[in-house]
Order: sequence, then C-alpha cells, then structure tokens
Amino acid sequence: MEILVLHGPNLNMLGVREPEVYGTDTLDDINRSLQSAAADRGVALRILQSNHEGVLVDEIQQALEWADGILINPGAYTHTSIALRDAIVAVGLPVVEVHMSDIHTREKFRHHSYIEAVAIGQICGHGSDSYRLGLEALVNHVANRSEA
Amino acid sequence: MEILVLHGPNLNMLGVREPEVYGTDTLDDINRSLQSAAADRGVALRILQSNHEGVLVDEIQQALEWADGILINPGAYTHTSIALRDAIVAVGLPVVEVHMSDIHTREKFRHHSYIEAVAIGQICGHGSDSYRLGLEALVNHVANRSEA
Amino acid sequence: MEILVLHGPNLNMLGVREPEVYGTDTLDDINRSLQSAAADRGVALRILQSNHEGVLVDEIQQALEWADGILINPGAYTHTSIALRDAIVAVGLPVVEVHMSDIHTREKFRHHSYIEAVAIGQICGHGSDSYRLGLEALVNHVANRSEA
Amino acid sequence: MEILVLHGPNLNMLGVREPEVYGTDTLDDINRSLQSAAADRGVALRILQSNHEGVLVDEIQQALEWADGILINPGAYTHTSIALRDAIVAVGLPVVEVHMSDIHTREKFRHHSYIEAVAIGQICGHGSDSYRLGLEALVNHVANRSEA
Amino acid sequence: MEILVLHGPNLNMLGVREPEVYGTDTLDDINRSLQSAAADRGVALRILQSNHEGVLVDEIQQALEWADGILINPGAYTHTSIALRDAIVAVGLPVVEVHMSDIHTREKFRHHSYIEAVAIGQICGHGSDSYRLGLEALVNHVANRSEA
Amino acid sequence: MEILVLHGPNLNMLGVREPEVYGTDTLDDINRSLQSAAADRGVALRILQSNHEGVLVDEIQQALEWADGILINPGAYTHTSIALRDAIVAVGLPVVEVHMSDIHTREKFRHHSYIEAVAIGQICGHGSDSYRLGLEALVNHVANRSEA
Amino acid sequence: MEILVLHGPNLNMLGVREPEVYGTDTLDDINRSLQSAAADRGVALRILQSNHEGVLVDEIQQALEWADGILINPGAYTHTSIALRDAIVAVGLPVVEVHMSDIHTREKFRHHSYIEAVAIGQICGHGSDSYRLGLEALVNHVANRSEA
Amino acid sequence: MEILVLHGPNLNMLGVREPEVYGTDTLDDINRSLQSAAADRGVALRILQSNHEGVLVDEIQQALEWADGILINPGAYTHTSIALRDAIVAVGLPVVEVHMSDIHTREKFRHHSYIEAVAIGQICGHGSDSYRLGLEALVNHVANRSEA
Amino acid sequence: MEILVLHGPNLNMLGVREPEVYGTDTLDDINRSLQSAAADRGVALRILQSNHEGVLVDEIQQALEWADGILINPGAYTHTSIALRDAIVAVGLPVVEVHMSDIHTREKFRHHSYIEAVAIGQICGHGSDSYRLGLEALVNHVANRSEA
Amino acid sequence: MEILVLHGPNLNMLGVREPEVYGTDTLDDINRSLQSAAADRGVALRILQSNHEGVLVDEIQQALEWADGILINPGAYTHTSIALRDAIVAVGLPVVEVHMSDIHTREKFRHHSYIEAVAIGQICGHGSDSYRLGLEALVNHVANRSEA
Amino acid sequence: MEILVLHGPNLNMLGVREPEVYGTDTLDDINRSLQSAAADRGVALRILQSNHEGVLVDEIQQALEWADGILINPGAYTHTSIALRDAIVAVGLPVVEVHMSDIHTREKFRHHSYIEAVAIGQICGHGSDSYRLGLEALVNHVANRSEA
Amino acid sequence: MEILVLHGPNLNMLGVREPEVYGTDTLDDINRSLQSAAADRGVALRILQSNHEGVLVDEIQQALEWADGILINPGAYTHTSIALRDAIVAVGLPVVEVHMSDIHTREKFRHHSYIEAVAIGQICGHGSDSYRLGLEALVNHVANRSEA
Repeated sequence: MEILVLHGPNLNMLGVREPEVYGTDTLDDINRSLQSAAADRGVALRILQSNHEGVLVDEIQQALEWADGILINPGAYTHTSIALRDAIVAVGLPVVEVHMSDIHTREKFRHHSYIEAVAIGQICGHGSDSYRLGLEALVNHVANRSEA
Repeated sequence: MEILVLHGPNLNMLGVREPEVYGTDTLDDINRSLQSAAADRGVALRILQSNHEGVLVDEIQQALEWADGILINPGAYTHTSIALRDAIVAVGLPVVEVHMSDIHTREKFRHHSYIEAVAIGQICGHGSDSYRLGLEALVNHVANRSEA
Repeated sequence: MEILVLHGPNLNMLGVREPEVYGTDTLDDINRSLQSAAADRGVALRILQSNHEGVLVDEIQQALEWADGILINPGAYTHTSIALRDAIVAVGLPVVEVHMSDIHTREKFRHHSYIEAVAIGQICGHGSDSYRLGLEALVNHVANRSEA
Repeated sequence: MEILVLHGPNLNMLGVREPEVYGTDTLDDINRSLQSAAADRGVALRILQSNHEGVLVDEIQQALEWADGILINPGAYTHTSIALRDAIVAVGLPVVEVHMSDIHTREKFRHHSYIEAVAIGQICGHGSDSYRLGLEALVNHVANRSEA
Repeated sequence: MEILVLHGPNLNMLGVREPEVYGTDTLDDINRSLQSAAADRGVALRILQSNHEGVLVDEIQQALEWADGILINPGAYTHTSIALRDAIVAVGLPVVEVHMSDIHTREKFRHHSYIEAVAIGQICGHGSDSYRLGLEALVNHVANRSEA
Repeated sequence: MEILVLHGPNLNMLGVREPEVYGTDTLDDINRSLQSAAADRGVALRILQSNHEGVLVDEIQQALEWADGILINPGAYTHTSIALRDAIVAVGLPVVEVHMSDIHTREKFRHHSYIEAVAIGQICGHGSDSYRLGLEALVNHVANRSEA
Repeated sequence: MEILVLHGPNLNMLGVREPEVYGTDTLDDINRSLQSAAADRGVALRILQSNHEGVLVDEIQQALEWADGILINPGAYTHTSIALRDAIVAVGLPVVEVHMSDIHTREKFRHHSYIEAVAIGQICGHGSDSYRLGLEALVNHVANRSEA
Repeated sequence: MEILVLHGPNLNMLGVREPEVYGTDTLDDINRSLQSAAADRGVALRILQSNHEGVLVDEIQQALEWADGILINPGAYTHTSIALRDAIVAVGLPVVEVHMSDIHTREKFRHHSYIEAVAIGQICGHGSDSYRLGLEALVNHVANRSEA
Repeated sequence: MEILVLHGPNLNMLGVREPEVYGTDTLDDINRSLQSAAADRGVALRILQSNHEGVLVDEIQQALEWADGILINPGAYTHTSIALRDAIVAVGLPVVEVHMSDIHTREKFRHHSYIEAVAIGQICGHGSDSYRLGLEALVNHVANRSEA
Repeated sequence: MEILVLHGPNLNMLGVREPEVYGTDTLDDINRSLQSAAADRGVALRILQSNHEGVLVDEIQQALEWADGILINPGAYTHTSIALRDAIVAVGLPVVEVHMSDIHTREKFRHHSYIEAVAIGQICGHGSDSYRLGLEALVNHVANRSEA
Repeated sequence: MEILVLHGPNLNMLGVREPEVYGTDTLDDINRSLQSAAADRGVALRILQSNHEGVLVDEIQQALEWADGILINPGAYTHTSIALRDAIVAVGLPVVEVHMSDIHTREKFRHHSYIEAVAIGQICGHGSDSYRLGLEALVNHVANRSEA
Repeated sequence: MEILVLHGPNLNMLGVREPEVYGTDTLDDINRSLQSAAADRGVALRILQSNHEGVLVDEIQQALEWADGILINPGAYTHTSIALRDAIVAVGLPVVEVHMSDIHTREKFRHHSYIEAVAIGQICGHGSDSYRLGLEALVNHVANRSEA
C-alpha cells in the first residue's frame, strides 16, 4: 500500500519558532513518526510540504498514477482552495483530512473546510496525534476496500 | 484509567433496521469492540446510551466523581444542547467528540456542534472506527497529562 | 391497523385555563374524538402526551415493534428537536405532523419545523380538526401502501 | 354552500407527461373526485385553473359576490404573489391552502408561502388527498361559522 | 399635459367591503377627485386599474406614444415586479409612486419597492391625499421640465 | 394652527456650495416659501435647523406645549436616531417626514428610516417641493382631525 | 404568598469545582439566602433544580395549582427551550428571569432568551444577588397585583 | 427540427427609444437574424414576445405538442417567475437561456435566475449575438440527442 | 458613597402625557424615591437627565472625579451610542444599566445594547422598580468592593 | 487576430478518469477542436493549462504584449481568485468566460464568479460546445471592435 | 496652509487613567507634537476635542470658511455618525481619518467606518504616530493639489 | 535595520497601461523612492513583487532569518489569502500593511483584509505616499522596540 502525505502552507514552520508555545516537534519529527507507523503496517509514504496551492494540486493529480490514498493537512488552503477540493474529486482517491488544532474553535473563517465534504473523514484537535490517527483510519479504509 | 462512554439519542437503533444500508453493526457490537480496545490499554469503561438530554447531563456531572475522561457521540444533541456543553465545562474533564458519519456533509443544521469548542478534539466520518480512534486519542491525552 | 398518537409538551394544558380564549376542548376530548374516528375505520390507537423530549423519542423507537404509523403534534419540539426527527427516520414509519394553530403565522422561531421534511404530510391551522384530518390522511396512506 | 376551487399555474399538466413519475391522475380526475365529495356534503363547486396571476386575482375578487369559501392550490404563485394574498384579504372569505407535495422539502425558494398567513389552514404532502382533506376542512369551517 | 394614472391589483376593491374599516371612498371617488384636480391644472388623465402585471406593463409601454408622465400606485406589484420597473425605465417618462398606507410600517415584505429607484419621488401614508399630492408633484415636475 | 418645522444636520449648507450641482436654493429660500404657503392656509410656523440630535429632541418635546403638528426633514438622523423617534412617540403629535432626494436610491445605510414608522406619512424625492407637499399633507391631516 | 424557584441545568454544580474561580457559594447557600429573604417578606418558597427540560416544564405546569409566581434561572435552556416558554404562557403566572452572569457578554448563542419575552422582567450579571433582587421584584409585583 | 423562441417583458422596446444608447437593432431585426440562421440549419422557428407571465407559461405548455426545444430570454421574469421554471420542468423540453447584457453585473436582484437551474445552458453578455449563439447551442444539443 | 444617576433621552416625558397609559409616575417621583432609598443606605446621589448624547458623555467623564458608581437608563442611546460605552470604559467606574420596560420584547432595533457588555449587570422590565433594584445592586457591589 | 486560451486548475484531468461519466473528450481533443475553429476564422491561438493561480496571472499580464483577446475557463479559481480578476482589468483585453457545466446548479460556493463582472460575456452549460461558442463570441467582438 | 484637527468623544481621557495600560501620553502631548510637526511644515492648526456629535458637525461646516483640510479621529462617532460624513461631503475639504488603535481588530461594531468612504485616506494602528503620519499625508495632499 | 518590502499580484502593472488614468509612476519609481527614504534612515531594503501566493509565503518565512520587519501591499491576496496571514503569524515579525487606494470604498469583497488583524497598522488611500508613510511607521516601530 502506498500513501501520499501532504502538508499545506506554513506547516514547515512547526517547532521552528517559540517551542515553548507550539511544542518542540518539528515537521521532520512528525514525518519520522508517520514513517515509523507506516512501516509497522507495511505501508510506503511519499511526504511533501508546500506553500504553493498549485504544487499541492499537481501532486494530488500525479498521485492518481501510484497512490492508494492521501493523508492531507491542507493548512490555510482548507478554507480557501476549491482547486484542492476539485483535484481530490478528480483523482477519486480516498482522502483523510487532519488538523493539529481544532479549527472550529479558532477564528470564524477557519470553521469551514472545502475539503471535508470530499474526504472520507476528518480528525482534528489532537496535535501530532491527529496525523497518526488519520494514517490509521486511512490505512484501515484502504485495506477494507481492497478486501471487499 | 477510567473512561465514560456516552451515546446520544437514537444510537441504540444502529443495526436494528435496514442492515444493508446502515451496516449490521449494532451498538452492542461497537461497545464490545470498545471494551476490548480499552482492556488492551488497561482502561475501564462505563458505557451508557440515552435519548434523554437530562440523563446525559446527569451522567457527565457524576463522572466528576470517578472518570478520567469522556468519549461522547452526542447524536442529535450535538447541534441543539447547550446544556451538554455546559456540563462538560462544569466538570472540566477531557472530552473527545466522535461521529460515525461526516456531520459537515449532511443537512445544514448538522454542521454546527455546540460540543466541539469544549472538546479536546473531534473525529468524524470513519464509521465505527471513529469510536476506536477517539478512545485511543483520549487515552493518549489522559496518559500524557498524568505523566506531565 | 395500529397507530401511535403523540402529543408534545404543554398540550396537556389544553382547555385547562382560560376556556373563553383557547376553547373548552381538553386533550381528553380530542383523544376521545380520535378514538371514535379510529374505531370507525377499524384502527387501534395508542395515545401519549409528554413534556419530555426523551420520552417521545423512546416511544417512537418502540413503535417500530408494533405500529403502522405515527400521528404527532410535536408542540414546541417541532422547532428544536433534531432527536425527534432522527427517531422518525430511524424507525421508518409513516408520520403525519399536525398543529392546531398555523405555526407559520406565529413568532418567527415557530416557522421552521424539523419534522416536516421527514413526515409524509403536514396539516395545520384547523384546530382540533387538524388531528382528525391527519388521522384520516395517515390511515389512507397506510391502507394504500398495504394494498400496493 | 358554494365553494371556489382554484388551481394555479402548471397544475393543468398533471398526469399529462411521465405518468410513471407523477401518477396517472389528471387534473380532471382530481376535479371529478372533488365534485363527488362536494356533492356528498351538498356543496356546489366552481373550479378554475389558470397560469395567469391576474386571472386568479380577478376570480377571487368576484367570489365575493357568490362564494362561501375558497380552496386554493396556488402552485408557483404561492411563493411569489403578494397580489393573491391581498385579494384574499380584500374579499375576507375563508381560504384553505393545499399542496400535493410537501413544499417544505423542496427547493429553498418554495419554503415560504405568502398565502399561509391569510389562510385559515394549510394541508400539504398528501398528493390528491390534500385536495379532499382541504375541502373537508373548509366545509366544516364554513358550516361551523354559519351555525354560530 | 397628459398623464397616465395606473392602479395596481386589488385597488378596485377600495370601499367595497367593510367601509367602517377602510373608509367609504371607492376607487371611483378617488378617480373623480383626481380628474377634478387635473382639470384645475389643465391636465388630461387616462386612468386604469388592473390586476394583471402584463396589462400594466403594456399600458406603460403604450404611454410612450402620448403621455407626459405616469402616476402609479403599483399595489402588490410594488414588491414583486421587476417587469414594471423595466417598463418604466424603457419608456423614460417621469413617474411618481404613491401608496395610501405607509408600506414601511406593514409586513417586512412590503418594505422594499422595485419602483422607487426609477421613480422621481415617492409619497405614502396620506390615504387618498397621497394620490392628489402625487399628481401635484408630477404636474409640477413636468411643467418645470418643459419650461427648462 | 401652529406647526413646528425641523431641519436636521447639514441642511443649513443647502445652496452654499456648488450651486451648479445642488441648486441655488438656500435653506432660507425654502423657509420663505414654506412661510408663504403656510400663510395662505392661515398657519403659523416655527422653523429650526440644528446639527445637534439633542437640540432636535428638546424642540420636539417642547412642541407638546404649543404645536399642532411637526414637519421634519431629519437629515442624517433619519437613519441613526432612535431618540428622535422616541421623542415623536412621546409627544404624540402628527408628524410628516420629508426628504428632498430619494433616500432609497442612495447608499444602503440611507434606506432605513427610524422615523417613518412613527410618522403619518413620508414624502421624498421631489426636491424643495417635498417640503411644500409635506406641509400641505400635514395641514390637511390636522384640519381633518380637528373637524372630526 | 407562595413562589416556585427553579434552577435549570448545571446550576447544581455551583461552588463544587474550582471555588477560586466560580466563588465558594454553592446552590445550597443561594437557596438558604433566598429562603431567609422570603421569610422576611412572609413568602413560602418551593425550590427545585433539574437538568431535565421535561421536569422543569412539568413543574411549571403543576405550579398553576398552588403558586403565585415563578423565579427562574433557566440556565442553558434559556437559549434552546421553546417548551419552557410555552409552559410559562400556558400557566399565566408572573415570572422573573434571573442570571448570575451577564448572558449578553458571553458566546453569541447565549445572547437570545426564549424566556424574556414571556417574563415580566429580567435581572442578570449580579452574581447570587441576581436571585435576591429577582425575588424582591417578583414579590413586589405579586403584592401590587393582589392589591389592585 | 422546430424551436420555440420566447422574448419576455419589455424586449419589444429594443431599438425603439434612444438608439444611440441601446443600439438601433429592434426586436424585429433580431428575429430576422434568428430566422435566417435557423433556415441555414433547416430549423423552423415560432417566435413570440409577451409582457404577460401567464402567456409565456401557456406558450411553453403548448410547445409540448410540437417543439423540439425552447430558446428563451425571460427578461425581468428571469428573477421573479417560479411559474416559468415549473412550466419548463413540466414540458421537459431542452431550454437555452439567453440575455443580451450580463445580468451578473447589474443590480443585485438581477443576479439570481430561476431559469438557469432548469436550462441546459446559459449565454449572456454578447448583445444580439447571445441569441444566435444560444440558437446554435440548442440546435446542436437537439441534433446530438436525436442521433444518440 | 456617591452615585451618579443618569436618565437618557425622553425620560423627562414620563408621566407627562397619557397617564392612563404610561402611569402617573413622573421622573421627579422616581428621583424622589431613589433619593429616599439612597438616604436609607447612607448614599449621596447626583441625578441628571439629558437628551444630548454629548452631555451624558461629559457627565460620565466628570464622575471620575467624585463618584463611586453610575446607575444609568440610557434610553434610546442604549442602542446607538458607542460614545457612551467608551466613556464608561474610560472612567472604569462600576455601572448598572436599568430599563423600565423589557427592551427585548420591543422592536428588533431595541434588542441590542451597547452598554450591557461594559455594565456589571442589567435590570429590565420592572417599571420604576428597575431603578430601585438597580441602585441596590450597585450599592451592594461598591460596598463589597471597598470591603475587599 | 491572436487569442490566448487559458484552462484553469484540474481541467487537464478531463477524459482521463471515468470516461463513462465525464465523456471521453480529453483537454487535447478540446484544444484541437478550438485550433480548427480558429483556423477557419484565420485566428491564431496560444493555449495553456495550469493549476497555479500565479502562472495564470503571469500569462494574462504577458498577453498585453501580443493578444487581441482571452478565452478563459478559470475552473475553481472562478470563485476564489481576485488576483485573476485584477489581472484582467489591468491588461484591459476583452475576455470571454466559459464553463462546461452550469456553475449555478452546482454547490452554492460555485454560484459566484469573480470573473463575470470583468468579462464581456459568459457561456456555461454546453459541455465542450461552451469553448467553441465562446471563441466565436470573442472573435466576433474583436472583429467588430477593430472595424469600428 | 491651515488645517483643522478634530478629536472625537473620549479622546480627552487619553493618559488620564491607568497610564501603565494606555500610555502616559495625554491629548495635550499629542497636540503639542502635532503643533510642532505642523510648524516645521509652515502649517497652522486649529485643534478641538468634543464629545458632542453636533459640535463636531458645526466645526466641520465652519471650516469651509478658513481651512485647507481636516485631520480627524472621530472616535466612537466613526461607527455611528452619518451626520459627520454628510458634513465632510458638504464642505468638500480633503479629510484624513486616523485611529490610534487598529479598529478592524476590535469589536465587530468598530469594523465599519462611515468616514472612510469620504476621506482621502485612513491611517490606523500606529498609536500617536497615526496622527503625525496623517498630518504629513494631508499636508502633502493639499500641497500637491495647490501646485497642480 | 533590514526590511522586506513585498508587492502582491498585479502591482508590477502600475504605470504600464493608461498612464493618464493610473498615473505614470511605475513600480520601479515607487521602489526607488522607497530605497531613497530607507537610505535616509540607514535602513536596507529587499524588495520583491510576485503574482504567486506561494512565493510570497516562502519569502515571508525566509525573512525570519534576516529581516527586522515587513512592509507589504498584498494586492488581491489581501482579501483571499489565509496562508499569507498564517505566514506573518508564524514568523512573528512586525508588519505594516499598505494600499495605494482606499480598499473600503471599492467593491464589497475588498472591504475585508485577512492581514490587518495580524499587522501592527494599516495605511491606505494615499497613493504612492502610502508606501513611504508605511515605511516610516514600520521603521519607527522597530527602532522603538529595539530601544525598549
């Protein structure tokens, strides 16, 4: 099984500034933890972070060639990118959407997600645990589907 | 570690009618699966389903005496019960909110949750997996907190 | 044929206070008239009034075991209870919604009904006639369905 | 007792196209069934269908000369015609509003009725039964009023 | 100077029913009073009432051939007819809009007028005086324009 | 008969600047024309302009002692002053509201008037004619009332 | 004079948790203080707290048999319960609504009260003083009414 | 192939007034150009303009007897007529909606079209070209469908 | 202890007109009653009524020099004056807001108060009792604070 | 004549997946058909697809150097990109906006287009025909303009 | 060059209370700094603070006699005074609007400014620097205009 | 001191087209003027324009390594880019937002800025002066902060 993991804009800044506030976990730490959990399930990951909406769309389109599913934290593009949503619909791969914080308790403009309607599920608020739980949900989903 | 698991209104109907549509999993099946996962982590569960908003509020209040956290699928009360929200704030226990379906892709009046702002996280859309992932997230959270 | 008749909150107060304003018909009078009309059609009724949302939900769920349809005046819960709506969907029985007054000409918050989208029809504004017309519509519907 | 029955725009198309979808009942069938039910109650009906808002308004105004009440399915004008509403208020006759489908479960713009606030009651969702129940409610209302 | 006076739907019912409520002035009385005031100013009037939106539009279009201005009480079409508004713009004649009652103190849906933005002025709330004041304002406007 | 004429904020600037745009009529010109029309009807006027909301409220209150009615162009306070509205209600004198331009075709925030619901009528869009027509309507109203 | 005092959901948690934040006053303390103030005025109180909407409705209905007025802090049901409002209207007893905190400065969904339109007055923001002031206002009201 | 071409209210005024502003093309010119283009494709046209909503509805209903498709510029009824929309749905013929100007850049109330959801496509902003392009699109659509 | 009592616009009209409607209590009566209640508590009052927003703001600012708290019925400025709110914040004195009627049951535009968010509490609906209860709440608050 | 043809995000996926649903036409097929139609009119096309908003903006800016007009299907950026709109305004070239599906019948967030207000016209709902009709409209527009 | 500097309500309280919070700069300090910067540019200032909307309007009107521009911090009247806006339009002088804090990050009701649409520019968020930068922008504007 | 100056999409088009409308100042002219003003204050600038949201985000992130503050005109991304906002929050550098025109007087969708809530201040409406004033405000802010 092969999974694409996408981190949206500004997630590369995790752990870089004010570790006493945002935690000391960098995006590299999260990625290592995901790789380790994936290995336990016999799953290969391709992981990418980008601040460019177009790059994320390109990457989702190309996943049609090789991936079994997509784990995505769309960051700020969650709330503004219909292009991301359309790309997910176009490739038809199962997608799980994750957020480290609870987007529904932040500013009003973060309450709406263009992605959730086209994702199979959403996990938010559990910090870096959100990623690991999301990977587990996605792998289960893909495994069940290929069994059926 | 002791966890209260609450199922809101109509969740007792799972698997009772039209199994070809809603799946054959009954609430009992879900509860057994939760008990098993809890046992693996050495966690004791008290599980309750009720169609009565007041009973759910009573139960949350009493959890202050004994529980380390609450896993709740508030069902329809997600969208209408400020009393449930206030009870969660009053007891101050960590709460994880789960939904089997993706509430954001159903009717407009199901998009808003009074609970999510007072829960530590929300998991939705993963069917009965939502419960198991939610329990895992809650147990991790409680474990980390008691270590800190 | 067996029909469940549900009266929501405060309908037990009919005719108790200010008969010169609200009419002298009590809920008992209405129920007797419904029983008589039902008898004429060879239909058995179970009639219940409750101020408790949870009790009404419980009752609808249990109707799955025995009833052919539900006649309901949800009273104030018309406008606030998604749990009632979900219960109706869960049991899948035909439901007719009745109101004695015209809810669309009262306060703004009474204009919306959570029930009407899951009922087969709605009758309002005809005083206690609303109940009798609703029973007739429901019995016709059930009769037609069992013939087909 | 004399009653005006008005059918609004496009109701003359009933049963004409796609009978497997809309049923095979034509407007003529409904009218015959209404005439028969009216005869049983000793009531005379004048029945009219028009696609013209102005014609419907004219007809309501003239009913002041001869009718005891109006049974109306305003069709699309339900949602757009304040002129119909004003005509009803101007003549002061009792009006019952009927709809074959449940207008509250269709497109958003069909949820509001300009007529319901000036009708004595509303019946919707019961197919052609809506007309017959509406006639019964109207005849009862007129009979009660003339007795009082 | 020649002026078209248009009365919209239901204004023909003035004074017909419940004179103790709406006054005993019929539309004929108002028209006679307008003719008399017009004669004093040497102005000829063509007066028309219709319940048909299309008839009112036709009439406005034809006024392009002969009239110097239009005095209109659009009745219910004030709030629903963009066709009337477009007709007024198309002919480019000066229009004064009058209402006997104050439309801003009635139901919410009567607060907006499609006509006022294309009329030179609006007079409302002065009963049948509204018409006479409106005629005066229109005649003054036309007179000033032809002088300039 | 004695009438209070109130001009709200900035109306003293009429005709002072850019006469080619706003006309050459100053507020003095309008007042002289009103005095002349009032004299013809045997009516005495007290005329006041103020940029101070409180001064206008004081003046309305004092009118209770001596005036038979109030003619007011509330200017910008039309849209922001509930205090003016309350003063009009408190004194209970008949009020006619006038505007030289059509407030409904200007910025959105000028579409709503706090005054119109408590005035007997509103006249707008007729330039300085609005004042004269308003005075006439008010004098007629007061005259009729004292006759009745 | 006999008064029913109702505390809505979660008010039984007062003073139980985090006394340094919410104060050390428990609901028992407040009730004792109310009983003492009532005794000074020769008034008997029945005091009840419930987390169940239906129980509160039942209690208000039964008060029709014995009480002269109702002092209520509806808690979260302030904002969601039309059934409570209808019960108050049904019994027709004078009701004073109190809140310890200022509901208008908390979350948006707490700004609206279904109760205030059917209560004779509202007191909020004065902590446990709100109850005592509310009792005083209610007792005065009942006393005045029985004198009149 | 036979096509009904409908022009809504006020379109008969094209080219009549202010040719320097609206162009010198009259509706006759447009119709001649449409007839010529239709002839090139071997298509027969019936063309009608009406200011009456009811006439347009009647015409659409009758097209069920003879036409293969409808080309319509509904004019002002685009934004106010649910009856037109229902007629289109009732006959089930393919409809192309055209507008000479871009309705989305005019007043707010012209942004919404009741027709576009039931038309196969919409063309706007291209002046009289809109009609010709719309005819071409409709003819292609009908031709393709009859081939399939 | 010294308290500033402010009455907003039009409150000087209390009891002046239509005593059978508004009661016979004048503002002087209310002030005398407040002075008497204040004397009982050993509190000195400065009482002022003004129709001028600016005067009320000036007065609040000057209270910083001498007062321990402010009792205010802002009248119509409750709903329109951010300047009053800012003045209250600027001086930092405890403020109790009172209204004789229940502002939440009157026109929509009276439902919002700019003051309540910066007042320690709000009392409304108790007629002139509102003032006395408000004074009591304010005096208690100041007394408690100076004790602490 | 030289025209820039721009395809927005995800349009490169046309025909790639689920041909039985979306048709078998790929973007290459559409482009070939456009090139052929352009050749017939003696028009040269530059065609570009990009998932990057910035690339589309760059391309529009550069068109100022060489193109006579722009044919654009902005895809998802239709609804989110003010930058695209500003680029169109900045270069001042005539733009025709096309959509293969009818954007007004899809999700609510696709109803608004930032482009339509700055395009000369919009064509939607005609599948790949939309492109060809749009090219024709654009070429006509440019041709007419250079003639004038 | 002569400039009017206006400070709206409550700005006279700057630095008076809680200097550790709001800074120790009083309005006098700001005014002295403005006078000094003005002197450097050879500009004369008239500076006024008032809590009275009417006084500010009067002052703006009188500036027509002598000033070249207006620098204004309208304080709370920014959000509520259409009269101030109208005064600025009436005199036609260039106006720069300044705010010490960022009004867009405070309460919702401070996000809208009636002034910004009639000011040449707006500067906010830079504390007392806002005034100095605003003066510079205004002086540049006036200087450029008189050169042109 | 080192400052990053960012110009958003389409600002590279300044002065390129229609100099008689937009002025003859190109972006190069503005940049030269900024460099000169910066040199006077001993400040080094890095200046970048991009039409790509992702490039702007990248640049802000990299500024964390070297810059003391950011001066940004986000152009169209002001209103659509949450990613830009998040980048500013992530790096924690002081940001001043500038606009040449007054964004609050243009189309509705330009009234809201995602940036202003995370900028220290905003300057708009002063043409190219906006940049220079913004630089001054930013340099002052950084200088003060490093002194403190």
